[in-house]
Amino acid sequence: MSLRIVAGSAGGALAGAVAAALDTEPVAADLERFPDGELRPSVDGVQGADLYLVQHTGPPVNDHVVELLLLLDACGRAGAGRITAVVPYFGYARQDRRRQAGDAIGIRVVADALASAGAHRLIVVDPHTAALEAICEIPVEMLTAVPVLARALGQKIPAGAVVVAPDLGAVKLAQHYGRLLSSPVAVVRKIRLTGTSVTAEELIGEVRGRPAVIVDDMISTGGTIEAAVEALLNQGVAPEITVAATHGLLVEAAEQRLSRSSIPELVVTDTIPQHDRPTLPLSVCSVAPLLADAIGRLHRDEPLDDLLGHA
Amino acid sequence: MSLRIVAGSAGGALAGAVAAALDTEPVAADLERFPDGELRPSVDGVQGADLYLVQHTGPPVNDHVVELLLLLDACGRAGAGRITAVVPYFGYARQDRRRQAGDAIGIRVVADALASAGAHRLIVVDPHTAALEAICEIPVEMLTAVPVLARALGQKIPAGAVVVAPDLGAVKLAQHYGRLLSSPVAVVRKIRLTGTSVTAEELIGEVRGRPAVIVDDMISTGGTIEAAVEALLNQGVAPEITVAATHGLLVEAAEQRLSRSSIPELVVTDTIPQHDRPTLPLSVCSVAPLLADAIGRLHRDEPLDDLLGHA
Amino acid sequence: MSLRIVAGSAGGALAGAVAAALDTEPVAADLERFPDGELRPSVDGVQGADLYLVQHTGPPVNDHVVELLLLLDACGRAGAGRITAVVPYFGYARQDRRRQAGDAIGIRVVADALASAGAHRLIVVDPHTAALEAICEIPVEMLTAVPVLARALGQKIPAGAVVVAPDLGAVKLAQHYGRLLSSPVAVVRKIRLTGTSVTAEELIGEVRGRPAVIVDDMISTGGTIEAAVEALLNQGVAPEITVAATHGLLVEAAEQRLSRSSIPELVVTDTIPQHDRPTLPLSVCSVAPLLADAIGRLHRDEPLDDLLGHA
Amino acid sequence: MSLRIVAGSAGGALAGAVAAALDTEPVAADLERFPDGELRPSVDGVQGADLYLVQHTGPPVNDHVVELLLLLDACGRAGAGRITAVVPYFGYARQDRRRQAGDAIGIRVVADALASAGAHRLIVVDPHTAALEAICEIPVEMLTAVPVLARALGQKIPAGAVVVAPDLGAVKLAQHYGRLLSSPVAVVRKIRLTGTSVTAEELIGEVRGRPAVIVDDMISTGGTIEAAVEALLNQGVAPEITVAATHGLLVEAAEQRLSRSSIPELVVTDTIPQHDRPTLPLSVCSVAPLLADAIGRLHRDEPLDDLLGHA
Amino acid sequence: MSLRIVAGSAGGALAGAVAAALDTEPVAADLERFPDGELRPSVDGVQGADLYLVQHTGPPVNDHVVELLLLLDACGRAGAGRITAVVPYFGYARQDRRRQAGDAIGIRVVADALASAGAHRLIVVDPHTAALEAICEIPVEMLTAVPVLARALGQKIPAGAVVVAPDLGAVKLAQHYGRLLSSPVAVVRKIRLTGTSVTAEELIGEVRGRPAVIVDDMISTGGTIEAAVEALLNQGVAPEITVAATHGLLVEAAEQRLSRSSIPELVVTDTIPQHDRPTLPLSVCSVAPLLADAIGRLHRDEPLDDLLGHA
Amino acid sequence: MSLRIVAGSAGGALAGAVAAALDTEPVAADLERFPDGELRPSVDGVQGADLYLVQHTGPPVNDHVVELLLLLDACGRAGAGRITAVVPYFGYARQDRRRQAGDAIGIRVVADALASAGAHRLIVVDPHTAALEAICEIPVEMLTAVPVLARALGQKIPAGAVVVAPDLGAVKLAQHYGRLLSSPVAVVRKIRLTGTSVTAEELIGEVRGRPAVIVDDMISTGGTIEAAVEALLNQGVAPEITVAATHGLLVEAAEQRLSRSSIPELVVTDTIPQHDRPTLPLSVCSVAPLLADAIGRLHRDEPLDDLLGHA
Repeated sequence: MSLRIVAGSAGGALAGAVAAALDTEPVAADLERFPDGELRPSVDGVQGADLYLVQHTGPPVNDHVVELLLLLDACGRAGAGRITAVVPYFGYARQDRRRQAGDAIGIRVVADALASAGAHRLIVVDPHTAALEAICEIPVEMLTAVPVLARALGQKIPAGAVVVAPDLGAVKLAQHYGRLLSSPVAVVRKIRLTGTSVTAEELIGEVRGRPAVIVDDMISTGGTIEAAVEALLNQGVAPEITVAATHGLLVEAAEQRLSRSSIPELVVTDTIPQHDRPTLPLSVCSVAPLLADAIGRLHRDEPLDDLLGHA
Repeated sequence: MSLRIVAGSAGGALAGAVAAALDTEPVAADLERFPDGELRPSVDGVQGADLYLVQHTGPPVNDHVVELLLLLDACGRAGAGRITAVVPYFGYARQDRRRQAGDAIGIRVVADALASAGAHRLIVVDPHTAALEAICEIPVEMLTAVPVLARALGQKIPAGAVVVAPDLGAVKLAQHYGRLLSSPVAVVRKIRLTGTSVTAEELIGEVRGRPAVIVDDMISTGGTIEAAVEALLNQGVAPEITVAATHGLLVEAAEQRLSRSSIPELVVTDTIPQHDRPTLPLSVCSVAPLLADAIGRLHRDEPLDDLLGHA
Repeated sequence: MSLRIVAGSAGGALAGAVAAALDTEPVAADLERFPDGELRPSVDGVQGADLYLVQHTGPPVNDHVVELLLLLDACGRAGAGRITAVVPYFGYARQDRRRQAGDAIGIRVVADALASAGAHRLIVVDPHTAALEAICEIPVEMLTAVPVLARALGQKIPAGAVVVAPDLGAVKLAQHYGRLLSSPVAVVRKIRLTGTSVTAEELIGEVRGRPAVIVDDMISTGGTIEAAVEALLNQGVAPEITVAATHGLLVEAAEQRLSRSSIPELVVTDTIPQHDRPTLPLSVCSVAPLLADAIGRLHRDEPLDDLLGHA
Repeated sequence: MSLRIVAGSAGGALAGAVAAALDTEPVAADLERFPDGELRPSVDGVQGADLYLVQHTGPPVNDHVVELLLLLDACGRAGAGRITAVVPYFGYARQDRRRQAGDAIGIRVVADALASAGAHRLIVVDPHTAALEAICEIPVEMLTAVPVLARALGQKIPAGAVVVAPDLGAVKLAQHYGRLLSSPVAVVRKIRLTGTSVTAEELIGEVRGRPAVIVDDMISTGGTIEAAVEALLNQGVAPEITVAATHGLLVEAAEQRLSRSSIPELVVTDTIPQHDRPTLPLSVCSVAPLLADAIGRLHRDEPLDDLLGHA
Repeated sequence: MSLRIVAGSAGGALAGAVAAALDTEPVAADLERFPDGELRPSVDGVQGADLYLVQHTGPPVNDHVVELLLLLDACGRAGAGRITAVVPYFGYARQDRRRQAGDAIGIRVVADALASAGAHRLIVVDPHTAALEAICEIPVEMLTAVPVLARALGQKIPAGAVVVAPDLGAVKLAQHYGRLLSSPVAVVRKIRLTGTSVTAEELIGEVRGRPAVIVDDMISTGGTIEAAVEALLNQGVAPEITVAATHGLLVEAAEQRLSRSSIPELVVTDTIPQHDRPTLPLSVCSVAPLLADAIGRLHRDEPLDDLLGHA
Repeated sequence: MSLRIVAGSAGGALAGAVAAALDTEPVAADLERFPDGELRPSVDGVQGADLYLVQHTGPPVNDHVVELLLLLDACGRAGAGRITAVVPYFGYARQDRRRQAGDAIGIRVVADALASAGAHRLIVVDPHTAALEAICEIPVEMLTAVPVLARALGQKIPAGAVVVAPDLGAVKLAQHYGRLLSSPVAVVRKIRLTGTSVTAEELIGEVRGRPAVIVDDMISTGGTIEAAVEALLNQGVAPEITVAATHGLLVEAAEQRLSRSSIPELVVTDTIPQHDRPTLPLSVCSVAPLLADAIGRLHRDEPLDDLLGHA
């Protein structure tokens, strides 16, 4: 089977870079948008291919999800031999359990729809929950961009910096950064130490006077980061705080909120394409080499253990 | 099983009217919208219910489709006994075949996703293609709003009016109107009578000097109607032309385009909720009694042959 | 994977011609018929093959359908690598919707059974409904024999001939013929112009004094053709009327009925094998080159857009 | 759920008797037969019913199988609550393994098609293989008509009769008869006692001078019975030999063959409807009470252990 | 549907208590154990029932899993109307992701097998991962025994006690206990603060001089508890340390290990039946009232939000 | 696809021999056993492979079944191209029907679980029921070890030996041996010749004074063999009785029971690994060449008819 990289409307630039790294031309997927908002994608030249379909499902999330389903259907009908959905940022991953009995479990709904539309395998980068691969009916490769980001951070952060997880959910991620940067790890936790509803940010670990790098899997509204910055400053951290995250959703007031904080450096990847944000000190690392490496190995039937997260 | 009418965010007013007609309270489905566009619906009090979930999938079509999938999942997890998706307007129904080998078949993708998310049965009104019930894995009741609209038209149109199908695809619909209104039927057809690419609107049937009612299943951009109006005027029809359609999508330039035409009366239903459109002579018939009748019969295990279209 | 053409009992001659065109030997599928009517097919030498199983599902339709299911099962158990059902004439395609609530939808029942018995892909020729590909769970290639038939007609029909669709359902097909033959198109329609039950054949388009070619996807009992001939003669068409159709079922009284009509030329293909019919002016075009072309391209992973109908 | 007995075209008289025994009216299923052999069944009044669909799949077996699939589809779309296929004689049951690698396994193909067409449960009578319930995806109740037949035989056969299994496959059945009739059991076996191809009928058990009752699950061409009769006569059995079987297919030359043998009494049931056969000493026991008993218990959620075979 | 409580071999005593609380008799499921270790369960009297099948999947875990699958199959074939698997302790829940590319995901394998064997719904108590309900194809009710245990602890622990999570994975659980006991929460964490492999137990929160309650979802070998006790004693906690956990697996050396520690009180539930352990200060709270409450509500179609964990 | 032989914990030695015969290295599957009995297998280097996973499901049967399911899952996630489960001895095969309405059908439960865990094809040796291939959703190759055993027996048994089936279920097997050894066949049958419960072993065929070889598919507790030996001795068979069976489960008291009987020679295969049994005259033939032959042919897409049983 020949290798084909197909780009959805939300995967264009990244797919191009991946294809270039693999010495192949990305396949053009046309997308017709009807006046009433319906989408009609179309692909060409994918018969019998080992096909990798690149499309993140960040905002506008529902448009991107439905387009991905339609593209999977189109690739299957066109006779693609094996279809791997490459979803660098996987939306709806925070809905992995019900908070109350009447909730949906969004991550499962999307996972089931992908499989039923014809995906044979899934590649994602740093999903919000590591249970994703257990939730999907099809095999999932959960790559991690932490080494990519850590390499970029290594050149930016001063000696003696401490890696900070902004909440308990990010501790494993922070430990991964800590190992790669040979840095100690601290955690901001929001625990109600009594049964009452009083909550406070508490900082675990030594940070006073040291430079800090807050790390997380994604930055959405920037609220979690803002609170962590405040907690760090309260603890007397060195005032210049670097922030790193795999997925830069940066929705809504995130830009305003983060530019207010004293963050001289904000590092994300291009799992979600980044446009110019003049007020943010944004630097972008590409996951294209990571994806190209993983895709190349899958195409050649080689193991990719060392690219996986949560090891 | 007790009867429950649940409203999605795109089904509110209609579900309320349906529930009222069935002497029950609609169930409140909460919908949380996250800043990044993800949706999280939640339902309550549906355990063991014979549940009818009302949500059209018109614009914004992808948001409505995904919300519907999530709601179906939520209802299933909450223990609903039987779930019927009531989708008065069913989007993506025009994508029922590939125009070229690389196309998706949108209607099938959506139909499969509904079944996989947990719908046991589907109710729609005047779907764009009568093959919908063959395409869906689950049973479908394809109701028709033509009697509802014909009743409204009966009081508006002058004697001697002719029913006009704006293209060949609407002929069966026009014949249905014709039977109910005891009116003759004419057709505008766009045929290339030679193999060349010259096309023209041609009118089949006697219309000169008579009042006309153009009928169609849906009005999207209004382009088809505008062309039919022009063809009718060219043939010397009486200048006041009534237009009727089940689904008033009226997207984009439709309002401007139709207000330009000399249409004194535009009749649609509320399968898609209609807001005020000051420049359009819009009158709206409700399908709530039709849906309530169908739901009531399904709940009581009664036949609904006479409510179905395409008989 | 090596290419294998397997013939069911209803595909023998055609499969042989297809295999010859592809420079391969057709695989012998034995068929044991038990005294009580049960069938037991058996195949040989198909391990790992890219297998194309040729079997139409015309009369005796149920025997052919069940044999096809059994053959698909046999091929799968024997280890065929990929199984494409080649069903030149696809029976039960007219049952694509319910006329009343208690009906079956035969086309879906057959389509589901094919997929569940192990077909991975389906090739058909001019199916009665273009929704077939949306109705099937597996990908479908809907080839068209119109170019094959038009080429044959081009040498038979006099200059100035008009292509006639015998009912509204055949208009798209007639337009396809019209484009290929550079001929105008006319339509016989059976419309009840009032709500009353009076029906009449009406002819749309100029035919007086011209030679005519009636075209349809299939000829079953010949009733539709007979009525169209009558309508054409009433309109003063030139008396020699050619008839062309992809599928020549010609059941029951068709032979008698059509030999009564003044049809000097009746052209069909061999999607259903034609035996000698002394009283009919039958000429048969083979779809073997068309099928061989399509199969060859699928086997070599090449596109087959230009072979598809309903473009 | 209300009880409904629906009759397929091959289940009419039996369904009527079953319904009568259950004090209900059988539901009329219309069956339209098209000139090309396609079938279109239609049902009415089955919404929400606990439905039992009676249709054997004896000759013409493929027509009966396809009709059954279509009927199941129709009942599901019409909203039946629970659908039990009652297939008194289950065809294709002898194809329960491959004799060679290229064979189909007919019983599985039919079983899968029934489940996929919508059957929730299956009732059969004395299936040719007891593995049927393991082969079907849906639960199966395998009833036995042996007590019904044994009761009839009890009044016909002389004292001291021996029950004879005509081959090894019928030994369990014969033992069941033996227990009910308090009779000894003998077996005709066709064993090649050496590795050579010489075969002979051998009789195991004491039969000389005694009256004999040959029992089997079905009589198809009568060949097995004829050979058993011959073997018995060779062993000096009393010349009047009774024959009993659940299913009287009696295809082809069976009538001639059996009337040639000295069989004064041939007892079968109406799992397959029996017409007059003047040359055969046929007496028919009805399984209607058995089916009615089983259906009634299933409807009332009562156990039916004592009606099951192969206990 | 009538309510039936069926006990697997690993659910006997608990099922009896649940049935008693619901004023019904538990159904006897026979279990035949063959000399080669194969199991053959059998149920009786479950036709049409709303059936709750009680079986934990603790040690011997594989025997219990396979027996549960067989029982589900038996209940389905016997005609149970709705089958809820009640698995108080759900084994294989720790295998919810791959540590390396060649791993299985045990939780998914078990979850899929349960659904395919016929479970319609699942009830568990405090599963090791809250993603269980997203991983299962069928709806899951994840009950929590924390209120049951907290009530028992409230009578045992001295004033001023602090709730201790023995690792980061138990923090949410500890917070739940903290709320119910109005106690502060501390955490033992095993973090590598540098990138090197040196690890140490660190205690977060004030414990010096206070009584402590270590809480976890399960105690398997007791190793985690032993380490936490040591860490607490190092920090000068009051020497009497209570331990509470939902599931008392207590395998292998657990008894020896825990009796060595200075634990005066070890509280678990009967999700896994507890036998006498003379050397352990074990007290057992029953989850029977919790399960009976949940089952009763599900049977009566009532909400059970307040019984669910992870709210 | 490259060929890979993977060994489960119950397939080690056999897989090694198979791999050697195919000139390849077996792949190491690690198996972690947790203290609570949970298993965690892991494979390596199977991406894109044509993989054959060797694991019998004899005792401890449930551990072996669950490990097999987990291994199938692991192989699928690791990206194996095609997965064939090689289960030399297939447990639960005797549970192929219900003896009473409340039973499970164990063979189907296991077969379904294998398919759902990811097996694409199954290879077994002399399964207890030939219906296995009809019961499995996936294709099954049922190999026979009879030629292997017959070859070994040919060198051991004296001239004039008779092959004895110990019950009616083994007659076909005995006939297979008889053909290969050019020996006559006798049968021990346990028939109740009257309807009363008196049973006796009866011997059919001439054995007096001849050497005998009892053959069966498996020896579990040895009870059937012991009874057959006794019946043979009662009939005056030559006192040295050879016993041959494909599967040597030899559980429980089998060793004691069989060493008591005067059996000088007990021949089995290594479908289940045999350890030293000092008191038994056990000789073991390997099925490794048979499996290697079958796997090699499947890998090269060659037919394997002559290796199949039940022809």
